[in-house]
Amino acid sequence: MSQNEPKIPQATAKRLPLYYRFIQSLHSSGKQRVSSAELSEAVKVDSATIRRDFSYFGALGKKGYGYNVQYLLDFFRKTLNQDEITNVALVGVGHLGTAFVNYNFLKNNNTHIVVGFDADETKVGTTMSGVPIHHVDEMEQIMKQNKIDVAILTVPSAYAQPVADDLVRFGIKGILNFTPARLTVPDTVRVHHIDLSIELQSLIYFMQHYPSAEGVHQ
Amino acid sequence: MSQNEPKIPQATAKRLPLYYRFIQSLHSSGKQRVSSAELSEAVKVDSATIRRDFSYFGALGKKGYGYNVQYLLDFFRKTLNQDEITNVALVGVGHLGTAFVNYNFLKNNNTHIVVGFDADETKVGTTMSGVPIHHVDEMEQIMKQNKIDVAILTVPSAYAQPVADDLVRFGIKGILNFTPARLTVPDTVRVHHIDLSIELQSLIYFMQHYPSAEGVHQ
Repeated sequence: MSQNEPKIPQATAKRLPLYYRFIQSLHSSGKQRVSSAELSEAVKVDSATIRRDFSYFGALGKKGYGYNVQYLLDFFRKTLNQDEITNVALVGVGHLGTAFVNYNFLKNNNTHIVVGFDADETKVGTTMSGVPIHHVDEMEQIMKQNKIDVAILTVPSAYAQPVADDLVRFGIKGILNFTPARLTVPDTVRVHHIDLSIELQSLIYFMQHYPSAEGVHQ
Repeated sequence: MSQNEPKIPQATAKRLPLYYRFIQSLHSSGKQRVSSAELSEAVKVDSATIRRDFSYFGALGKKGYGYNVQYLLDFFRKTLNQDEITNVALVGVGHLGTAFVNYNFLKNNNTHIVVGFDADETKVGTTMSGVPIHHVDEMEQIMKQNKIDVAILTVPSAYAQPVADDLVRFGIKGILNFTPARLTVPDTVRVHHIDLSIELQSLIYFMQHYPSAEGVHQ
């Protein structure tokens, strides 16, 4: 999809990986069609939203029939670029980083953490869940060798911006920022920020003001 | 705010804690007014969105003046209920859980993890960053004693639903779910779900389709 083509809303785009995961499991279980109500129950998004989302990408369900699972699967696989593997680097192998390396996005077969970086000499040279840990000083060389476009940032807050600056210089195109720091990067680099304390405050706010609705992350 | 009062959009509500944090730091540095452009630069949300968000809660900036910092601070403190402390329990003290306990939302002075739960006997009875770790079997008693409304769920995926069922029975009102499992809970319980592999897929999708825009989490 080029940038001149019509874009689907970001809120819809955000839900695509969620839909894709469920459609995959439906497909493996041999199911050929699915209703928006079934999807809604499984992914915890209300069915009106699902119907609107699906209408953006031309999947028009039929009343009493629902959606064709194979059509949806093909659409999502192509749209989410599932046939291409994305190599991911993780910078900062503390507890949070270790959790991600161990988890290593097992549910996605197209994204892999291929390398971890840390400044702690006791970690450098080790392997965690099959992922080699290198010194941050080796970042440039290793990132270029492995054609890494995406980095997960789990360093202490004070290092977030300098490390992000390095990552940008080494050609990174996307950063998943788990530090509390807000990053400044060029327009050509995409940053998604997951700030744990903000997620918690947001949950509490929604508990008080929208006690019975579904979460924005759902 | 009762449920019958007009509600601000969820996307706006989601940004309130972010605004609040920055307004707090402006206030401590003695600043009395702030423009939407300055806010935009600091919180990485475009200024048109900031102006629209602020208009929902009656903060109307003046051209060439901006917004009054004290007004914003008072508004956010009240709206985000910052004068009340929220006690949080964390269930599942693995790497991810340990990271959260150590971090313990230092930036928020109104939310605290007061207790951790795990089934691992080697962890039970210990203290991490001042947070006592109890056995999951003690959950009911301790949650009621400490008046805990919110839980962070960092258990292995297979335990997510049964633990959530327990939490609901013990009176929890909100769950921050960090497991890949989708939870089924009563309508009266609010769940926000942060699924790491979906966040990563989403970042990659946005890198390819909206390479130069700000992230939905920004």
